[in-house]
Amino acid sequence: MTALDETQAPAGTEEFVAALRANARRYHHQHPFHLRMNRGELSREQIRGWVANRFHYQQCIPLKDAAILSNCPDPEFRRRWIGRILDHDGTASDPGGIEAWLRLAEAVGLSRAEVRDERHVVPGVRFAVDAYVTFTRTRPCAEAVASSLTELFAPDLMSERLAAFERYYTWVEGEGLTYFRNRLHQAPRDSEHALQLVTEWCRSDDQRERAVAALSFKCDVLWSMLDAIDQAYPG
Amino acid sequence: MTALDETQAPAGTEEFVAALRANARRYHHQHPFHLRMNRGELSREQIRGWVANRFHYQQCIPLKDAAILSNCPDPEFRRRWIGRILDHDGTASDPGGIEAWLRLAEAVGLSRAEVRDERHVVPGVRFAVDAYVTFTRTRPCAEAVASSLTELFAPDLMSERLAAFERYYTWVEGEGLTYFRNRLHQAPRDSEHALQLVTEWCRSDDQRERAVAALSFKCDVLWSMLDAIDQAYPG
Repeated sequence: MTALDETQAPAGTEEFVAALRANARRYHHQHPFHLRMNRGELSREQIRGWVANRFHYQQCIPLKDAAILSNCPDPEFRRRWIGRILDHDGTASDPGGIEAWLRLAEAVGLSRAEVRDERHVVPGVRFAVDAYVTFTRTRPCAEAVASSLTELFAPDLMSERLAAFERYYTWVEGEGLTYFRNRLHQAPRDSEHALQLVTEWCRSDDQRERAVAALSFKCDVLWSMLDAIDQAYPG
Repeated sequence: MTALDETQAPAGTEEFVAALRANARRYHHQHPFHLRMNRGELSREQIRGWVANRFHYQQCIPLKDAAILSNCPDPEFRRRWIGRILDHDGTASDPGGIEAWLRLAEAVGLSRAEVRDERHVVPGVRFAVDAYVTFTRTRPCAEAVASSLTELFAPDLMSERLAAFERYYTWVEGEGLTYFRNRLHQAPRDSEHALQLVTEWCRSDDQRERAVAALSFKCDVLWSMLDAIDQAYPG
């Protein structure tokens, strides 16, 4: 069943999904820094600062997905979720998302070394990302999976961002945008799976409230990262 | 380089590897329960009890490997280590080690249901296995990897066990032994990788002592599991 197949879904699934989706209003596509980015108003230095700081998040994605794997006793779940780690770390045939982000970094004029050693990463970004990893390590699997549902909102932002880069930031080589292009199809596939799990697992009011709170927490993480980047690179 | 390539290995590697290998004397192949198993002296009930209890360990292997992934910031490391999770959880083309253990369980006369719900798992086994998972979640990556080095000692035990099953426990269908056969080649491959990492990462006396202690801890885990099984199924 898909999450939205109401013929077999648990009672109240539609309202629950609506409550999850309502978090879209708190998603970081509305953050002033992203609004300026998508209007083409950021300087090269601001774009670089964003890319270098956001790398800490990219680095930590496999750590949080491995933490989720480590907390879920269901092999069936793990067999699918592990694809997220492979997507980011790469395989023999695919360099993966972390490598794609490093290529973006090079395309905006940063060296791989200065991105990898995280010298530009500001404390607020580190605290927010690390809070997210800790959340996935310490919370029940259902909440950790629910926190990933910001991917429900990601494709629209990713499309806008791609258009903005192609239009306003033409100094960035198109090949550097591969990470964003890959996420256009990865994010909907992943969020559909996560939504299916969360609607199956969370059936009581309490479980559903905690799932919505987890997603809300994740919106705070993303927003807080941009607050810190905005402060560090005022333009 | 391989771990034993002394031309490039860090100073003292040979002694360090010897100290690690010395833990073989504490490995559970010497446990009275295993000695009796390999002499063909266990009853069907004892074999079943062992298979059902050991399933808790099998279930937790991917959880501990995911915990190790989650604690290691090096994508290169993770790209290889993730193969252990795939080996146990399975992929589209390979049913994996947990499934192979369930088939062993069926071959010894247990139902998948009674193994999966862990109704036969005794507290001592649960405590030991869960201590191992907690160890990998909370200790530095190098120690967690070092704790996996019991696989250095596993192939000999596995060969003896296979011979014992084929000779003494002929009531167990040969197909049920696939798990053991797979480990004959998986364990040396995995332990070679782990040994290479541990000798590269652990260069100070303190780091090396902690690696040896981690392996010693893991020997205690395996031994303690057999103590508990031995008590629960006195024959």
